[in-house]
Amino acid sequence: MKRPWQGQVEPPLLKTVPRHDPHNPLCPGATRANGEVNPYYDGTFLFDNDFPALQPDAPSPGPSDHPLFQAEAARGVCKVMCFHPWSDVTLPLMSVPEIRTVVDAWASVTEELGAQYPWVQIFENKGAMMGCSNPHPHCQVWASSFLPDIAQREERSQRAYQSQHGEPLLMEYGHQELLRRERLVLTSEHWLVLVPFWAVWPFQTLLLPRRHVRRLPELTPAERDDLACIMKKLLTKYDNLFETSFPYSMGWHGAPTGSEAGANWDHWQLHAHYYPPLLRSATIRKFMVGYEMLAQAQRDLTPEQAAERLRMLPEVHYCLGQK
Amino acid sequence: MKRPWQGQVEPPLLKTVPRHDPHNPLCPGATRANGEVNPYYDGTFLFDNDFPALQPDAPSPGPSDHPLFQAEAARGVCKVMCFHPWSDVTLPLMSVPEIRTVVDAWASVTEELGAQYPWVQIFENKGAMMGCSNPHPHCQVWASSFLPDIAQREERSQRAYQSQHGEPLLMEYGHQELLRRERLVLTSEHWLVLVPFWAVWPFQTLLLPRRHVRRLPELTPAERDDLACIMKKLLTKYDNLFETSFPYSMGWHGAPTGSEAGANWDHWQLHAHYYPPLLRSATIRKFMVGYEMLAQAQRDLTPEQAAERLRMLPEVHYCLGQK
Ligand SMILES: O=P(O)(O)O[C@H]1O[C@H](CO)[C@@H](O)[C@H](O)[C@H]1O
Ligand SMILES: O=P(O)(O)O[C@H]1O[C@H](CO)[C@@H](O)[C@H](O)[C@H]1O
Repeated sequence: MKRPWQGQVEPPLLKTVPRHDPHNPLCPGATRANGEVNPYYDGTFLFDNDFPALQPDAPSPGPSDHPLFQAEAARGVCKVMCFHPWSDVTLPLMSVPEIRTVVDAWASVTEELGAQYPWVQIFENKGAMMGCSNPHPHCQVWASSFLPDIAQREERSQRAYQSQHGEPLLMEYGHQELLRRERLVLTSEHWLVLVPFWAVWPFQTLLLPRRHVRRLPELTPAERDDLACIMKKLLTKYDNLFETSFPYSMGWHGAPTGSEAGANWDHWQLHAHYYPPLLRSATIRKFMVGYEMLAQAQRDLTPEQAAERLRMLPEVHYCLGQK
Repeated sequence: MKRPWQGQVEPPLLKTVPRHDPHNPLCPGATRANGEVNPYYDGTFLFDNDFPALQPDAPSPGPSDHPLFQAEAARGVCKVMCFHPWSDVTLPLMSVPEIRTVVDAWASVTEELGAQYPWVQIFENKGAMMGCSNPHPHCQVWASSFLPDIAQREERSQRAYQSQHGEPLLMEYGHQELLRRERLVLTSEHWLVLVPFWAVWPFQTLLLPRRHVRRLPELTPAERDDLACIMKKLLTKYDNLFETSFPYSMGWHGAPTGSEAGANWDHWQLHAHYYPPLLRSATIRKFMVGYEMLAQAQRDLTPEQAAERLRMLPEVHYCLGQK
């Protein structure tokens, strides 16, 4: 952290996003690339991505002739979910009841797409730095005919831990972090936020329910309200850290769905990962390059230092403080 | 690849890097952060990183009280290697004999640090987009007391393949790619460059010797000359692709070193990975975010398309063509 930084400085934020832009395909009433017109929605709005990476009818690559050249069809659907009709808000600037409607929409889309697909990946890329190409508050949902790599790794680790120790890995992990406290950021009646012991991004966090919950749709109304509340607090802290709209990629992981949903997935615990790139300021990020790509992740500050800085930050958003 | 891009556009390159800047700590004759003065070197120059991530005497974290909280000391050294006394050149603009001195320096540092450390990671972060904070042509060498994660994964895969198929994975892989041709970029008497079947970055390549070589120091003089030559061709093609100084992280992987260097590592084949971020132009990159971070890599163009584009590009650098 002491080395002088003469490298890339990120461009400052576009300051003025108009509340409504009829040419923005995510806005209520706008016409999308495929000619469809968005409804004048006033909560969340879910639609098919006009440029999907996964398609339900992707052709099969056919049999392979060699063990080193194995390929399989990747089938699925890609959806976009708008969080709010206005383009000039972000989750931490939305009210708790508005965030609660997002939580409900996440649970419903998991249920809907999970009826057919074994994995439903909800993720949000926030900010231009994280490859987000539209400032309107939204996330994406990609459902796939296969367990993606990271899902497979979490499946293996959680299954192995359960069979060795007789309890879910992330239940015991959350329990330990509650005792140790040094990596905790926020706690509430139903949820925990912490900088995980294994964090690689400077201010990476893990959001965990306290109760054993395998998937989003299982959350009770009280847990959903409390989730909306703790998300607002966490994202407010993030924005307050460098007084900027904090960029990140985040996503939910829960037990696999689809035709095997009825199997025993008790080793799974629902959780969300937040991966934010900023390191020193609103314009100086962590680069995951060179050594990290070719050898191993290495951190510029400890998880305990990151947790302490996040813990100390106010829960009132810096843009709302003057009111 | 068809979706319109309204997202982040990278800042254009700083056009004028002075050939010599007495305040640049990588230049001949400059004073570094620790007060040392660089010699007036005229080939390559290796020195200790003044802000090392690894240190030879890192303290041990002590025993752990829980299976989920395991930590170990990471010990090592970090060095910087300048490729050339001038700040305004890059490898593709250097002559083949100049690049050959870099190859020799890589082999020597592997030998020197490999006498003590089990892993010597040589890597180059090129360009501000890849977190490089100094335009002077250089790479880094981090030697560690442990096998980093990626090294461990390559060790496992190569060992398993050898024990199942009786030959090194990457020897058979290179052989197959020579037969299939569709992912080849360049071939020479002693080397191959291809876009690997498993590539995740748009124009990612793998550089492989044709002979079974476990580590850089084993390369013959003829193989070293030929390596300098094929590297110049590859990096010229990269620069020509979007007519820019092409950013990337690259690094060498070879059999582990250190006290176990004498064991049987015949399943290893030396290779270099190139991971370049650009996707569509000199300013539009691939973002490895959201789905890629939380689920699985997904490509915007196929390895075969990438290989074909690279194959078609001239081997004369766009900056030198007019001469
Ligand atoms: O060593 P540098 O150039 O200071 O730093 C660069 O390379 C390191 C090793 O890949 C990374 O950890 C840093 O994030 C990056 O900015
Ligand atoms: O879906 P978008 O916003 O067009 O694209 C963004 O998210 C995708 C999924 O994480 C990534 O593959 C793209 O690189 C990124 O730019």
